[in-house]
Parts: sequence; C-alpha cells; structure tokens
Amino acid sequence: MAANRVERWERRSEWPLSIAAVIFLLAYGLPIAIPTMSYDARVACEIVVRITWVVFAIDYFGRLALSERRWGFVKRHPLDLAVILLPILRPLRLLRLVALVGVLNRVGSHTLRGRVVTYVVGSTALLITCGALAVTDAERGQSGTNIANLGDGFWWAITTMTTVGYGDRYPVTTTGRFVAAALMVAGIALLGVVTATLASWLVERVAEATDDDQAATRVQVEQLTAEVRRLADELAASSAGPGGDRLPR
Amino acid sequence: MAANRVERWERRSEWPLSIAAVIFLLAYGLPIAIPTMSYDARVACEIVVRITWVVFAIDYFGRLALSERRWGFVKRHPLDLAVILLPILRPLRLLRLVALVGVLNRVGSHTLRGRVVTYVVGSTALLITCGALAVTDAERGQSGTNIANLGDGFWWAITTMTTVGYGDRYPVTTTGRFVAAALMVAGIALLGVVTATLASWLVERVAEATDDDQAATRVQVEQLTAEVRRLADELAASSAGPGGDRLPR
Amino acid sequence: MAANRVERWERRSEWPLSIAAVIFLLAYGLPIAIPTMSYDARVACEIVVRITWVVFAIDYFGRLALSERRWGFVKRHPLDLAVILLPILRPLRLLRLVALVGVLNRVGSHTLRGRVVTYVVGSTALLITCGALAVTDAERGQSGTNIANLGDGFWWAITTMTTVGYGDRYPVTTTGRFVAAALMVAGIALLGVVTATLASWLVERVAEATDDDQAATRVQVEQLTAEVRRLADELAASSAGPGGDRLPR
Amino acid sequence: MAANRVERWERRSEWPLSIAAVIFLLAYGLPIAIPTMSYDARVACEIVVRITWVVFAIDYFGRLALSERRWGFVKRHPLDLAVILLPILRPLRLLRLVALVGVLNRVGSHTLRGRVVTYVVGSTALLITCGALAVTDAERGQSGTNIANLGDGFWWAITTMTTVGYGDRYPVTTTGRFVAAALMVAGIALLGVVTATLASWLVERVAEATDDDQAATRVQVEQLTAEVRRLADELAASSAGPGGDRLPR
Repeated sequence: MAANRVERWERRSEWPLSIAAVIFLLAYGLPIAIPTMSYDARVACEIVVRITWVVFAIDYFGRLALSERRWGFVKRHPLDLAVILLPILRPLRLLRLVALVGVLNRVGSHTLRGRVVTYVVGSTALLITCGALAVTDAERGQSGTNIANLGDGFWWAITTMTTVGYGDRYPVTTTGRFVAAALMVAGIALLGVVTATLASWLVERVAEATDDDQAATRVQVEQLTAEVRRLADELAASSAGPGGDRLPR
Repeated sequence: MAANRVERWERRSEWPLSIAAVIFLLAYGLPIAIPTMSYDARVACEIVVRITWVVFAIDYFGRLALSERRWGFVKRHPLDLAVILLPILRPLRLLRLVALVGVLNRVGSHTLRGRVVTYVVGSTALLITCGALAVTDAERGQSGTNIANLGDGFWWAITTMTTVGYGDRYPVTTTGRFVAAALMVAGIALLGVVTATLASWLVERVAEATDDDQAATRVQVEQLTAEVRRLADELAASSAGPGGDRLPR
Repeated sequence: MAANRVERWERRSEWPLSIAAVIFLLAYGLPIAIPTMSYDARVACEIVVRITWVVFAIDYFGRLALSERRWGFVKRHPLDLAVILLPILRPLRLLRLVALVGVLNRVGSHTLRGRVVTYVVGSTALLITCGALAVTDAERGQSGTNIANLGDGFWWAITTMTTVGYGDRYPVTTTGRFVAAALMVAGIALLGVVTATLASWLVERVAEATDDDQAATRVQVEQLTAEVRRLADELAASSAGPGGDRLPR
Repeated sequence: MAANRVERWERRSEWPLSIAAVIFLLAYGLPIAIPTMSYDARVACEIVVRITWVVFAIDYFGRLALSERRWGFVKRHPLDLAVILLPILRPLRLLRLVALVGVLNRVGSHTLRGRVVTYVVGSTALLITCGALAVTDAERGQSGTNIANLGDGFWWAITTMTTVGYGDRYPVTTTGRFVAAALMVAGIALLGVVTATLASWLVERVAEATDDDQAATRVQVEQLTAEVRRLADELAASSAGPGGDRLPR
C-alpha cells in the first residue's frame, strides 16, 4: 500500500527530477564556463541552484512521508540523503545528477550487455562533465594551478579518467584532488566494465561450441525418451492386443 | 535483388577503395612527414586527397542509388556518410582508412580469437599512424607545443594509446586534444580487448576439465540409450519368438 | 593437538594483534603527519612502535613454540617472519598491518564476490595509507623531492595506485621508489581484481540463459525417469495381475 | 628420426644456452651498471658478449643442420634467427635472454594457472631488467636525457611497464623510444594476463555452483540407468523364470 504510494510518487517524480537535474547542471555549469559572467547573472544562477536543491528536498521528504518504515527508507536511500545534506561542499552538489541515471535505464537496450554499454557511455559522459566543472570551479584563480578554464578542465578530466595522466594539467587544491580521486576510481571502474563486457562477449562466443555440445546431449536425451515411450506403448499394445484375454491389464 | 546489386558493388569496390585509402594515407601523410616539402608538391598531395574524397563519394552514392530503401541505407551506414561529410575537419579525413579494415577481415585467421588478434594488431597500427599524423598536423608550429615532428607524433601516440602518458609530449590545440581523446578511448578499448582475449583463452583452457565432465555425462546417456534399445529388442524378440502365437504383435 | 593449540592461540591473539596494529599505525603515522611534533613526543611514538614489534615477536615465537613441526611452521608463515625480521628498514614495519587483513575476513559478506569487494576496498585503503606514510617518511626533507607533507603523500599514492601518474609528485629516493614499485604492482593487481569481479558477474548473468538450458535438460531426464518407472510398474502389475498364473515373477 | 636428433640436441643444449644467456646478461649489463669501468674491462665484456653470440649461432646452425626440412625449420624459429641476425642493434642482443624462458617452464607449477603466474613474474622481471639496461645504454650521455644511471633506468622501466608514466624520466633517443614502446606493449600484455588469470580464477569459483548442478544431472542419469537395468533384469527373469517354457529367450 505505502510501497505502492512511494512507487507511484517515484514514477511521477522521475521526469520533474531529471529536468531539475538538467536545469541544475546549466545553472551550476554556466558561471564556470563563462568566467566573464556579470555578478547579477551569477546570483541568478546560484538562486536556480538552490531552487533545484529545494525540489530534491521536497522529493526526498515526500517519499519519506509516504513510506511506512521511515528508518528503513533512510537506510535504503543513502545517496538521496547525501544529495540533500552534502551541498555545503560545492562539488558534491553534482550528486543531484544521479537523477539522470534513471533516464539511461529507459533509453538503454533490452539485453544486459546493451544496457551495460548505455550505462558506460552515459555515465562516462556525465562523470567527465561533472569532473571538468568541479575541478575548474575548485582550481581557477588558485595559486600554482594550471587548470584555467573549462576547456582545460575537460582535457584534464579525460586524461584522468582514462588513467593516461600526462601531468600537463593537475589539481593543486584539496577539493580538486578529491574530485580527481573520484574520477580515477571511476576511470578504473570504467576500464573494468569495458574489459568485462568485451570478455563476457568473447567468452560467450567461444562457449557457443560448448553449448552446441550440450544441445547434442539434450537431443540424445530426447531420442532416448522417445525410445522408452515407444517401448512402453509396444508393451501396452502387446498386452491389450489379440492376446488381451491372456495378458489383461 | 537490390540487396544483391549492392553486395556485388561492395564486393567489386572493396579493392579500389582500399587502394584509394592507401593512396590517401600517403598523400595526407607525406606533407606532414616532410615539413620541407615544396609548395607545388603540397598542392599535388592536396589534389590527390580530394580525388580520393571523390572516389569515396562516388562509392557512397553508387551504393545509395542501388539500394532499395534509401533512408534505411543512410541510417545503416553512418560511418560511410561521415567519411563523405566530415572532411571539412582535416583529422576526420582519416576516417577514409576505415576502408582498410575490410582487408583485415580477409587476412585474419579462421578462429574467432585469431580474428580478434588480427583486428587488434591491425587497428592499433592504423590508429597510432592516424593519431601521429593528425596530432603532428594539428600541433606543429603552434605556440607552446612540444610535438614538433612526426617522430614526436608517433612517440606521443604510443604513450597515449598505452595510457602511459609521460607528459613530455602532449597536445595543446583543441584539434590535437580531440585526436588525443579519440586515441585514449581507443587505448582503453585496446586494453580491454587484449585482456578479454587472454581471459577467454584461459577460461576456455580451465573449462576443459568441466567439458570433460559433460562429455562423461554424454557417454552415460549413450550407454543408457543402448541399454534401453537392447531391452526393447529383447522384448520384441520375446514377443515375436517361439511364443509368437501367445504374444502376437 | 599441537595444531589445536596453535589455532586456539591464533583465535585468541587475533584481536590483540589487530589492536596492536592500529596502535602501531598511529604511533608510526603521527610523527609523519605532524612534522612540528616535539622531540619527546617523537621518542614516545618510537617507543610505542618498538613495543608493538615486541607484541608481534611474542605472538610469532608463541605460535612457533606451540607448533609441532617448527621448521614447517617457519616455512608456512614467511610473512609473519618478515614482520619480525625486517623492521630495520622503516617502510617494511608497515607489514605489521597485515594483522588487520584478518578483520576484513570477518567483516565481509558471505558470497565469494562480496568478500572480494570487501578485500579490494579494505586493502586499497590500507595500501594507500601505508604508501602515503612510507613515501612521506622517506622523501620529506630530501633534496629535489616534491612530496613535502602527508597530503602530498596521499595524493601521490592515489595517482600511483590508479596508474594515472601525473608526475607532479614522484619519489626521488631509493626507499621512496621501492615503496612506489610496491604500490604500482598493487595498483595493477587492484585493476585486475576489479575487472575480474565485474567480468565474472557479467559472465554469470549472461550464462544464466545457458543454465536455463541445462535446467531444461534436467527436467527432461526427470520426466524420462518417471516414464521408465511407470513402465516398470506397469510391467510388474501385468505380471502380478490376473494373468499371474501365466507370467509369474 | 631427424626430429628426434633435433629434440635431443635441444634437450642437451638447453642448460648451456641458459648459462650462456646469464653470462651474456652479466657481460652486457656490467659496463652499463658501472660507468666508471676501465676501458680494458669494457673490451673484455664486449668479447664475452661476442662469444655468447657465437654460442647461439652454433646452436642455431647445429639444429638447422640436424633438421630434415631446412626451410621449414627457419620459418618455425623466427626468434632464434633474430637472435643471430639482429645484434647489430645493441638492444636487440637482449633477445638472447629468450633462452631463459625455457627455464621458467621447468620451475613452474603443474597447473595451467600456476604456470601462468610463474611466466608473468619471471618474464616481468626479465623484461624490466632488459628494459632498464637497454634504455640506460641508449640514453646515458645523450643531450637532454634524464636517465643518467641504471637506477634511473630501472625506475623508468617499472613506471613504464605498469603504465603509470610519471614523466620524470623518459627516453629522448630513437633507440630508447623503441625500447619504451616494447616495454609498454609488454606492460599492457602483463596487465591483461594478470586480469585474465584473476578473472578465470573467479569465474571458475563462481561456476562451481553451476558444476554442482551438472553433477546433480549426472547422478540422475546414473539412477535412471540403474532403474532401466533393473527393469531389464526383471523382464529377463520373468521370461526365463518358471514360465520359461512359455516365453523362451
């Protein structure tokens, strides 16, 4: 009942939350992308960012109110809670984009591996965008930094996530380094998923020969079953046949 | 019918296109490899590059004209369309070399894993060559660059694709960075394919013991079938034998 | 008997050793984390470090005394011996933290893959901490170094273990380079375990379809068994039935 | 016959060749490790290097003379031919160490995965040693280089093979860059093999549950076989029993 109400809320709130996440991305990213933006525009963007926070907070507390076991709900949705509590640290505001991952689920293919590919491409693009925005925001204007604009930020995010790491651009602030650590871990996971998907595809293809063998076993069992059935029928026929008076059932 | 005509066209055009791709590679690469080339030679190379573009355009529109469902053909061959439309951006002209991938298919071994190895080696060589040419073309003569000749370009392409990334050479122009991003993604895919091929080989070897077990099951089923058949024959013999008057079939 | 006594000792000593390892980590790490620490506090930390060494030595010789085959015990526990013998080299003292790995075993999930995840996360955190401490200890104050404090050490350890390697921070002393080599090997193993876990998960999911096929075979064999049993019963019934005088058992 | 003679030669020459490879390694490596070595000692080392070349040449031509199909032998042993022909390029002399790989085969464990581990550890150690020697030999004394001694060479080889690539040390000569490319490719293969071995181990462990299912099928088939046999025996007994005169076999 309550679960149904929560589910209905979640189904209905998915699109508004996705739109809020995109609006947030624009309001968060534009002042970083355009350093020459006027003070008023910056304030407007900050207000929009806060409004999206309110939207996410309403969604969270709405679902919390509808759910029967409040404490269980809090424990099962730690990421949603983090989205509400953590924005004091600017880069963590980007967690709101997790709302977009649900969209990937709907866009994706029907097969498991097709969905994995959609997730890899979608979340890689999202992570590089977030990493580039967060690192540019954290680094620009700091002393000794070499990430001066969003272009540098994107370039750095790509070299980091692929674990190439030229070292022509790297964060020097603590915030920037935390963003970098998150991207590196994501990069390793990305590498792992790409390799695993390819390996699973190859193993499956190579295993087809083995499957053919198993199919052969199945065919044999089927033939055997047919044989036994024929034998049984024959036996029944011989009993019930002209000699029925002799071998009654 | 139409599909047959398209197929015949594709079979016949494969070699001409491969030759056009190699000629294009030479005409594109030589002015980059030899910076001291005369103006006239450069113009000649550019003309050859444009002629290869015409060859690819003729091939594309020829296949489009032969195909029954035009729109379906356009949608199914996005790479071929890109080869025709994108050469406004110099590095994307290298997409024409995709025509060479078909050659790999014919050279390769018969087993799936043998073909994977051929593709990995062939496309790695092709990608490093393309990356080196494109980055040298984009970077040479730019301010702040450290990729001064094709040797540096090749060295950079290898360190990038293997994700080593020393950082002694790295692109500073936007074009060069896009080339780098493409090479990095290719490097990750390369790593993934190498690992997956090795993993699939190892899994298969280790799985052989399991396969032996399955073969044992198959042998048992075969013995069982033989047993049932013998039983059936015996029953038939006993019915049709001397006691045939008593248990007629 | 002796084996039982060794086991009982090991079960009872696990918690004291874990606590000794944590105390050691604090006493080893604090003087590195706080370079401004007074001379007296440094001496106190060094004494605590030596006391933990004594605890580990008592544990080792206790187990050695309880075991029946002394030489076999020494050969089977080379890491424990290394913990006792190697602390002459400062970074190798961190081997004492191996005692904490046992804790991971108890915290971990029940499934194999859950345990692998616990080990990966736990040992990665432990390795980065150890690497950061050891490299900061080795590098700080050396000429030409760029790892000046524990923050730099952590940043360097993360970029090394993920094989990103920007090159903004790197060890220049021989000790630091050995620490780096250990972290790199650990990083490769980490990458391998992450990929392997993902691959095994994907292969299993994809294999479920195959498993379904095998289940189908099993169902068929079951049906066949039922058929044969019914046949046997029928035969028995026909023999023992009204015609029992004719076909006695 | 001839094949037997070649095999006998190969069995007998394995140890002498391994020893020649180790002596070569010392004679090749010592002048690189000790830059202050006297001119006479250098000349002596060079003479020893050439003697090992003669040993390998004798081995190759001996096997060639013993083999029946000369041309087939040449084609099947391209690496051995390379060992003889290529030493004009100094770093390629290290190919002689391939003779040591045979030793790994004998040291290794009996299981496939155990052998893979032995090969990975052995060939990684060999490759890092070769890479360090070759790059130090090629780079030392060149202008703009930052690999000044064998310690730097080893450090560089480790950072390259693990694909970390800090960029504090990197080759600038063409020879050094070719050595680097070889090490990078080896590093990727190493990463692949480590991951693949772990993945195969995990897949096997996870597959054990599936194997248990298959064992269950096998047990069922066995029970079914027993059932059919009992049925057959019963039928035979009923025919051959007291009613034997009625249902003779």
